[in-house]
Order: sequence, then C-alpha cells, then structure tokens
Amino acid sequence: MTDFNIIRVARTVLNVKDLDRSRKFYVDALGFIETERTDEAIYLRGLEEHTHHSLVLKKSEQYSVHALGYKVASNEDLDRLQALFQSKGLKTKWMEEGTQHALGRALLVHDISGMPLEFFCKMDAAERMLQRYDLYKGARIQRIDHVNCSVPDVEKAYSFFVNELGFACSEYTATDQDRIWAAWLHRKQTVHDQAFMNGEGPCLHHIGFWLPDPMAIIHCCDVLASLGYAASIERGPGRHGLSNAFFLYLRDPDGYRIELYSGDYLTSDPDFKPIRWDLNDPRRQTFWGTKAPDSWFNETAPFLDIETGDPVGTAPPTLEQKKPEFII
Amino acid sequence: MTDFNIIRVARTVLNVKDLDRSRKFYVDALGFIETERTDEAIYLRGLEEHTHHSLVLKKSEQYSVHALGYKVASNEDLDRLQALFQSKGLKTKWMEEGTQHALGRALLVHDISGMPLEFFCKMDAAERMLQRYDLYKGARIQRIDHVNCSVPDVEKAYSFFVNELGFACSEYTATDQDRIWAAWLHRKQTVHDQAFMNGEGPCLHHIGFWLPDPMAIIHCCDVLASLGYAASIERGPGRHGLSNAFFLYLRDPDGYRIELYSGDYLTSDPDFKPIRWDLNDPRRQTFWGTKAPDSWFNETAPFLDIETGDPVGTAPPTLEQKKPEFII
Amino acid sequence: MTDFNIIRVARTVLNVKDLDRSRKFYVDALGFIETERTDEAIYLRGLEEHTHHSLVLKKSEQYSVHALGYKVASNEDLDRLQALFQSKGLKTKWMEEGTQHALGRALLVHDISGMPLEFFCKMDAAERMLQRYDLYKGARIQRIDHVNCSVPDVEKAYSFFVNELGFACSEYTATDQDRIWAAWLHRKQTVHDQAFMNGEGPCLHHIGFWLPDPMAIIHCCDVLASLGYAASIERGPGRHGLSNAFFLYLRDPDGYRIELYSGDYLTSDPDFKPIRWDLNDPRRQTFWGTKAPDSWFNETAPFLDIETGDPVGTAPPTLEQKKPEFII
Amino acid sequence: MTDFNIIRVARTVLNVKDLDRSRKFYVDALGFIETERTDEAIYLRGLEEHTHHSLVLKKSEQYSVHALGYKVASNEDLDRLQALFQSKGLKTKWMEEGTQHALGRALLVHDISGMPLEFFCKMDAAERMLQRYDLYKGARIQRIDHVNCSVPDVEKAYSFFVNELGFACSEYTATDQDRIWAAWLHRKQTVHDQAFMNGEGPCLHHIGFWLPDPMAIIHCCDVLASLGYAASIERGPGRHGLSNAFFLYLRDPDGYRIELYSGDYLTSDPDFKPIRWDLNDPRRQTFWGTKAPDSWFNETAPFLDIETGDPVGTAPPTLEQKKPEFII
Repeated sequence: MTDFNIIRVARTVLNVKDLDRSRKFYVDALGFIETERTDEAIYLRGLEEHTHHSLVLKKSEQYSVHALGYKVASNEDLDRLQALFQSKGLKTKWMEEGTQHALGRALLVHDISGMPLEFFCKMDAAERMLQRYDLYKGARIQRIDHVNCSVPDVEKAYSFFVNELGFACSEYTATDQDRIWAAWLHRKQTVHDQAFMNGEGPCLHHIGFWLPDPMAIIHCCDVLASLGYAASIERGPGRHGLSNAFFLYLRDPDGYRIELYSGDYLTSDPDFKPIRWDLNDPRRQTFWGTKAPDSWFNETAPFLDIETGDPVGTAPPTLEQKKPEFII
Repeated sequence: MTDFNIIRVARTVLNVKDLDRSRKFYVDALGFIETERTDEAIYLRGLEEHTHHSLVLKKSEQYSVHALGYKVASNEDLDRLQALFQSKGLKTKWMEEGTQHALGRALLVHDISGMPLEFFCKMDAAERMLQRYDLYKGARIQRIDHVNCSVPDVEKAYSFFVNELGFACSEYTATDQDRIWAAWLHRKQTVHDQAFMNGEGPCLHHIGFWLPDPMAIIHCCDVLASLGYAASIERGPGRHGLSNAFFLYLRDPDGYRIELYSGDYLTSDPDFKPIRWDLNDPRRQTFWGTKAPDSWFNETAPFLDIETGDPVGTAPPTLEQKKPEFII
Repeated sequence: MTDFNIIRVARTVLNVKDLDRSRKFYVDALGFIETERTDEAIYLRGLEEHTHHSLVLKKSEQYSVHALGYKVASNEDLDRLQALFQSKGLKTKWMEEGTQHALGRALLVHDISGMPLEFFCKMDAAERMLQRYDLYKGARIQRIDHVNCSVPDVEKAYSFFVNELGFACSEYTATDQDRIWAAWLHRKQTVHDQAFMNGEGPCLHHIGFWLPDPMAIIHCCDVLASLGYAASIERGPGRHGLSNAFFLYLRDPDGYRIELYSGDYLTSDPDFKPIRWDLNDPRRQTFWGTKAPDSWFNETAPFLDIETGDPVGTAPPTLEQKKPEFII
Repeated sequence: MTDFNIIRVARTVLNVKDLDRSRKFYVDALGFIETERTDEAIYLRGLEEHTHHSLVLKKSEQYSVHALGYKVASNEDLDRLQALFQSKGLKTKWMEEGTQHALGRALLVHDISGMPLEFFCKMDAAERMLQRYDLYKGARIQRIDHVNCSVPDVEKAYSFFVNELGFACSEYTATDQDRIWAAWLHRKQTVHDQAFMNGEGPCLHHIGFWLPDPMAIIHCCDVLASLGYAASIERGPGRHGLSNAFFLYLRDPDGYRIELYSGDYLTSDPDFKPIRWDLNDPRRQTFWGTKAPDSWFNETAPFLDIETGDPVGTAPPTLEQKKPEFII
C-alpha cells in the first residue's frame, strides 16, 4: 500500500511548430474545446472535463513531449511522492503554484525508466460542456484517457508503477517465453492511465482521448477526410482485442500520435484478474485481425528532461521481438 | 397507366413571421444548408440535395402553407398534367420560368381534396454537400422525404392519387369497418411522398425530412435541448410501426410540424402488397406502444388558394373515429 | 475517512412469481447471460461481468426485494462495517460462506433509513463474455450500475452514506427551500452506485444496468416490441439531464422497475463539485423536457427485513413536494 | 426509351462446396434469414425482403457464379427483352416456371460482355421480417443491393446497359485520358444495381447487401471475430468516396466476395448529373484514403455459360491501368 493517492493521468504538454496549424486539427477537426490561447500556447479540454485543460500545445521548434501530468488527491500526496522518488535516487523538482499557467504546485520527477512525470492536485476550474451538445463536433472528445509509452524494459516499468506507485494491471501482453512485452496499468477505474510497450525509450507512443461511442470515431474519419486530413489517419478504425475499445490512431500535424478511444470497461474490482494476451495472437491489437502499419511500431516522440530541457536519452528494448510475428 | 411521370415530392413553401427566428431553428439547430437568403425568404436544402432548395421560408404574418411542390420528369409532363386536372374540372394556373426564384415553369392546381399542388421539372442546381462532413450538424438533414396531409375523405384522395396520378400505396390504416383511415403513397421508391390521414382538411399535417440514421435524431434532441428548444419536441423519438422509420416530430417556431425520419425501406417492386394496419393497433403509430399527444391529432396548418392567396376552406372528416381507441 | 473500502453496488435479489416468465424477459429480451438456474432461482450477469451474477431472481409469491448487495475490498472490511453499524445501534447479521449460493461471507444490515444492505468481498468467478459478440442480444446488458431507492428523509440517508460509509455525491436535486430532494452517490467512479429520492420508504425504486451505447437501448425497444413486451416500457428512451445518461425504464413481468442506462461520465476527481439541479427544472429528469408518467413517481417495491423476512415498514416522505411542479 | 421495365437486381446464385459451412457464415454470422434448405441448396433472404430469396447457395465442387438475376415489371417485359438480345445476336434461353425453385418463367441471356443474366418477374412470396427485431443478428442484412463485375471493356458494357437496357449512371471513374474505368449503373433509385470495373472478365467481383446503418457493420466485424471469421474480412470497414456508402468487404468460405453496404443516397432524379471521380484520387475508393489490398483488385469469380454450364471465357482488360497509382 502506498501512502499517497494518485487519481489519474490528467494532462500532457506537446511542443508544436505552428499554433494555428495545430488549432485547426485539434479544435476544428477533432472537436476539442479551446479554454485559452496565448501567443505561446493553446490550452484544450474535452467536453466533460471540469478543469482548465488536459492538453497543452506549446509553440516550439523542438519536436518533443514534456512531463506526463498526473493528478493526485491532495497536496500532502505530492510531498510523499517526492519522498518516494528521492528514496529511489530519482531526480525531483518543484514547480510552485503560478509557475505553470492554471496549475497549482507541481512535483516533476523522472521515473525508473527515465520518463518525466509531473504530479499536481490543483488546476483551475473550467465550465463543463458535456450538455452543450450544440458545441459537439468532429470526434466529440470527452476527456483524456491514457498515455502509452515505449520503454526498454517493460517489466521494470511495470514493477515500479505497480509496486511503488500503486497502479493495478488490467491486461498485458506476454512473449512465448512468458516475459511481459506490454502492460496496461490504471489508477482510475478504466483499463489504463498508463501503458508500456517494449521498444526504444523512454518515448511517448501516443495519448488516448475518450469518446462517447464508436460513431463519434466514424464521424471523425469523415470529417478529417472532408477537411483534407485523410493522411493523418494512421491505423483503424477498429476494435482492440486488448481493452475491447473501439479506436482510431491519428498523427497530428507535428507527427504526435493521438488515439481516439471508446468503450472499454469498469476496472473497480481488486479481485479482477489481469487478462493475458499472447504477443502473436492476431486478435490482440485489432480484434478483427487487421495488421498495424510499420510506422505504428517504429515511430515515437522524445521526452524532455525536467532539469535541462534537453531530450531524454533512450536505450534499445530488452526483449528481442519488436512486433507480432504476423506483422513481420 | 398515366402519360406523365411524377418523380417525387420536391419542395414546400411555408409562411413564417420572423426569418431570423426561423433560421436559428432550421439552420443552427436542425442543420439545414442555407442556399440563399433575401429580405423576403430563406431557401434551404439538405446535405445530399443537388437542387437549390427543398424548403422555402417566406416572410409573412399569415400562418399558412403554399402549394406542395412535386418534381416531374419533363416539361411535357406539365402539359399532360394540366390536361388531366382540367378534364376533372379542377383549377390550374401557370407560373412561367422566372416567376418563382430558382424555379422553372410550374403548374399550380388544386387536387380532388382542394389541396394546392405545384408541378415543375426544373430547379437551379446547388452544390451537393453530402461529403462535406465538416458541415454536418444538428439533425444532419439529408433530403425532403414526404408530406402528410389531413383530408376529410381519405378514400377519395387515395383514389385520385393512385388512379389518376399514378402513385402506389405502401401501407395503410383501416378502421374496424375496413374503411381506409390513412394511406401512405409514393412515386419515388420509399414508403411515401404523400400521406393522407382522416381529419378536418385539406390541411398540412407535417413535412418529413430524411436523416442518415437514428443517432442523428438522438443527437438532434440533445442539440435542441442545449439550445433551449426542448419545448419544440412534440412526439418521439420512437420507431414507427407503419413504415418502420425512426422518427421525431417537432413544432417549428411558427407551429409547423416537422418530422425527422430515418430508415424506411425500398418500395421498388410493383408486386409489393400494401401493408394493412388496424387503426387501434397500439404498435401502428409507435411500434413501442407510446401514445401520440392530443396536439398531434388536432393541430394542422392551413393551405393557400393558388388563385386568391386566401386560406383554402376545410371540411370535417368523413370517418367518425378521430384517433385510435387507446388514445381517447 | 472510513476504515473500510466499499467498492461498488454488486448484486440485487428479487422475488419473482414465475421463473420461466422472468427468464424470457431478462434473458431472451434484455440479453442477460444466465450463469445458472436451479428450481429456486436464476442467476444472471452482464456481458462484461467476471463474477457469478449481479441479479438473482428467486421464486416466491411475495413481491419484494432482498438486501442490496455491495462488494467490499477485503474480508476485514466486513468486520469494520459491522462495528460501524453496531455503533449506530443498527441491526446486523452474518451469513457465512456457503449459506448463499456462489457468495462468500456476507454481512447483512439495516441502514439509517431501515433499508436492508448486504456486504461481501467474494463471489464465484464466471467467464467474461465481453468479446463473445455472437452472444450479444436485446439490450446488450454490460453490468450492474446502480440502485435507486425512495426514502422518507433523503438528507438523513445522504448524510449516512457520505459521512459514515464514504460515498461521494456527484449530483443532487434541491427544492426551492434548498432542501435535498434527491441525491446521486457513488463509490465506483461513475455517477452513482446508490441514489435516493424523496418518497414513501425505504423502498426500491429501480435497479440500473449499464449498456455500451444509446443504440443498444433503441434496439432493445424494438426487440421488446417484437416480442410483445411493448407495455413493459414505462418511460423513455431519453437523455437524463441529471447524469447525462441515455436511459429507458422498464417494468419486468412482476412489476420491478429496471433502468437501462448508458453514457454517464467519470467521477474520479475528489475536487469534482456536485452538480445542483432544481427540482422544477424541466431538463433535470429528461433533458429533452419529456415528463415522467405518474407511475414512475408513485410505484416502488418493498424490501424484506434481514431477520424476520417480512416486509420492511415504510414512512411517508419528509418533504412535501412529491413531484416537479410541471408534472402535477 | 426501352419498351421493357427492369426493376432491380434481385438474386444471385453461387456454387459452394459445403452447405453447412456456408450456412454458418451466412446465417449465423451475417444474419441472413434462411427461407428454405434442401440437400442441394440453401435459399436466403434479407430482413426486409418479401420474396423467397435473394441469394442461393448451390452445392457444387465448381467455384463459379450462375446468371445474375434481375426482376422485371411484367411477363411481357421478358419477351421484349428476348427480342432485344436476339436482335443483337446474343444467346437467349427460356427456363419455364417450375424449372427453378420458387421462381417464375425466366429468360437467360449473355450480355455484350459475355456475362450471363437472368430476367424474371415472379418469385414466391415470403414473410417480411423487418419488424422481427428479435431475429436481428450479425450484420442485420436487409436486402440485396447490387452486383459488381469486372469486364474487359467497361465503355462497351456501360453503353449496352445505359442505351439498350435503360440503366442510369450515378457515378463513374475516369482515367487521365478520360476513358471510363469503372461505372455505377442503376434501375432502382439507389447508386447502383450493377457496377463495372476494368479487369479480366467477365467475372463477378462482388455482391453487395444493404444494411440499416454503419453500426451494423461494426457489430458484424465483432461477431465475425468472435466466431473465428476475422480472416474473412478483406477490406474495411470504411466510407466509400464513390457512393458515400459505409462498407465492409468479406470473403465467404468459398472465396466469393460479399460487400456489406449502408447509406448511399436517392437517385430518383433524371437530371442528376453523374459524379466523376479520377482513378487516382485517393478518396475515391475509401474516402479516408485507406488503400485496398491487392487481392481486392486481382481476385474475382468466374461465371457459368447459360447453355453449356461451363465457365465463361474471359479476356484481359482494355485499359492498361489496373489500379490507382498510389496502390501500385
């Protein structure tokens, strides 16, 4: 048992080259609500979110991702988290309230894989638009759901998140040698807040946003094509075997991968037994057997160091098999 | 066999008091495409329509409906139709091309029930927006589908439309005495272009517009409520027993009844046997057994005489039973 | 902070007169999975449930409801719950493992309103059918979602559940005098596990089951009508203002009210501010303004005493207003 | 103007090796209604069809397709069609009523491309299951929609169908040299009854069946995967640019290609201008830009000669370009 309470993944911050270009994609095509825009950044939220933002697009020439933001229950949880990370010899850094727009005091750290994380318990409130159906458009983005990262050693990352941070595992992928190749870990009662997959890393593979139903994804494909974004569709739509969600993977104008995600299941029960999938099961990724393209396996985005602001160094994956056999 | 070819119901023209107020309802909430707006009128079309309009809203203080517009295959069909109406001693009147905005030469008549009809074969073209999914909103109105009128003598109207105008009957409602209480008649290959029901008339009961799927109706209810139009929802959503369509009935700001309609079936086959429904079958109107409100049976809109421009006189219904028994 | 961890509402047990008649309704029409059937009872679960059942139908001539079943995290939680209930002078009773089919040790109690509750941490496992799409039918019931009870003093029930049992409030209804008329309380991260509304009680108003999307509800209406169950539809389908869920209320063959429920929102955040609705807001119950029928306000089911097995006595509601003004 | 009236494509007859294997696919997975089964054949229809069948599966070792069946308005139309085919020097053959199960008198012919066609005006009636929602499953197949054939000379086939048989063109694909590479032709008021594409032929490319909405296709994918048919999914689901329909292509157990198809548009108007698509427009086939697999371009099924029962000889395509450039 941990002595702190991490609630859920709560925000991501991406560097983008052209704010106008990104705004067209995220607001006009995908249907994010724009909370605020400055010369430096755009702050976006989903229709059911009651907080200032879950996605920040920062103007920058450098393709990279800031620390992944997790919400905790209380201010004290932040101090206890710092104690944990320091006890493991991991870097930590405070950002006092007011340093980051709309955000309270935040603890920045690097985790066991070198991945930058941020913890906070307070964000400015924003009007919830869930019943402003007149504003629904594109994918009808409802809320942030999860982040998925490639790391060199999934078992190490798994162990740290489950044993030290108090995450639970809903589903995982194993190799023929019974090594964990990928894992879906959650704090909130959905399939995941954080997934890890075997690969060069730590890198961000994608951010997942939750939609109300599969038709929102179909409509989003139609809207994207109407607006000239057909080439942004990388994979799907389809049904995941793992998680059972209906999904679509997009590449935004800078190349970041966004997953539109709908319809997993409740993971409230402590006695829920994690579901095991064989890496080579063709129904694992897409239940209907469709293969993911090479780019989906090979392309990720680099993280930034919480202290230097430089890209975090990466290492090659521990497990040899890089893709399911039927893809190779 | 007729010697002319009526294609389908193609437009309706409604008098409305306040063009701005109507525009908010039809364009902002229901999602019609506005082709053109003048000081006198708004011209609206659905997403798949390749013609200038299917609905005209004319500024006027007088709550009433102009002649129902039917498209025919050729100019010659108009002359042959005139011959038919004249041979029956019914009023006819020509409106030459250019008289009505965006419309070719039109023949106006009164039918056997005194109901004003308009026939034309030519309308200005407009860009089809079917694949402009970025413009989809509200109910995603696709095209005009049908008109439904209350008339004093349904059997007389039925006989005129089927025997003289060449319509086919898809479904009908019969009383216990086996009299036709209502009928669904079509030229295009859907359940109807024109329906008649027993009532004071001739009056317009409603205009039906076709939507791509039931979820467009659910979303429209949500949008209407978000925009403060909840009171405009008169009946539904529900599944019709008769026609099998998923439906919603609305009252527009002037009180005209609009049906959103989706999912009937193909009526291409000449050997299709009209489906009989008993007036008192609770699944006839709403397959789920839900009762229609009194207003749905009692309130209609008056027509205008093609010559005088005054309201067309009405007569009480021939058949005594005014509603299904379980409603009374 | 409580010293126990209630996970979620997990099962309900209803007395029914005719098991075959009930089976047709719940399995053939609604699409529940039948885990097991004996001469005395039918055990049902939803498609995503990994436990033996969430609904038990017990053969009995007596129209009444057994203790509402809540799952807790551990066996120790049961002892701590007993301590709490005893400290309040409330009745408690143990049912040892094996006493109830497929269930571990259970603590039965009466709560502050006299309502019978049952707590347990263990139930036999069952195969999860979430990806057996070939078995989906009717309403595609996914899992139990909530119970709703009428009680004479909602504020007292609210206070007990929030302050003593550790529930959080997501939304509530207030009268003009700012008294709590109804409340939606949750342990799992959805809008509710337990709702209370002002009325004669304690009585069961309805049990809610979660479905994957609104179309499952539409299809269920169609299936119900096809199978002759149209009269079982009491209210809806529609969108709730409160909770934002898409809903349908049914009356089962014995008269118990079942809600099909889909699409509320995540309630993970401790800083989520409960949403206040005015009792007389026409969008509160049905966002589209549709009125609930009288039966929905007036008819409920009695509970059974955990010791005597007799019906629990009821008291009239504390707050005078029994319905929204626009209904009266 | 023709002196006969072809109504629509109405049935196809496929040879299959194993009736039980085919039944599992078409009835259990896709949801066809089985009208009748003999030792030699299975007769299938969709939920809205009021006729005995639209698909016949005949037991045979020979992978091949019988004459494509078109319904005409009257018995006289058959004689007039014979006159036309004979005047063109094309083979014709009568099958008197009773020769083919459930079918009236039929005229068999080879068309200008050598493709076998069958015309009839009478088929036994069958109960329409449109409102038997309790029987809906899998893809909820509603009715036969179209056939698509590859022919060596699309312009010749186009000209014969449009000028001699009275079909209308809704959409077509042209090469950079403005040659017709593919064409969508209809008699009933949908996008097509008959499509032609440039290829070795005459061969059957696929049969299309109409479904009520896109979710029926998504659910069908899920059901197929649940039942072990994931490998049967060849292409999609997706949105067609051409026709705007939502689609899925399957390969049945013998290898025949079946399209599930939903949501094109009304083609009632004689002044509708055929829509031109450039062969190399990436949105033409799949509006979202997804590429079709090679098998979709290369694999078809042979036809049988109406007289000899042997496979019809084929010829290579006239136009050199075999696929869109971005596929090659």
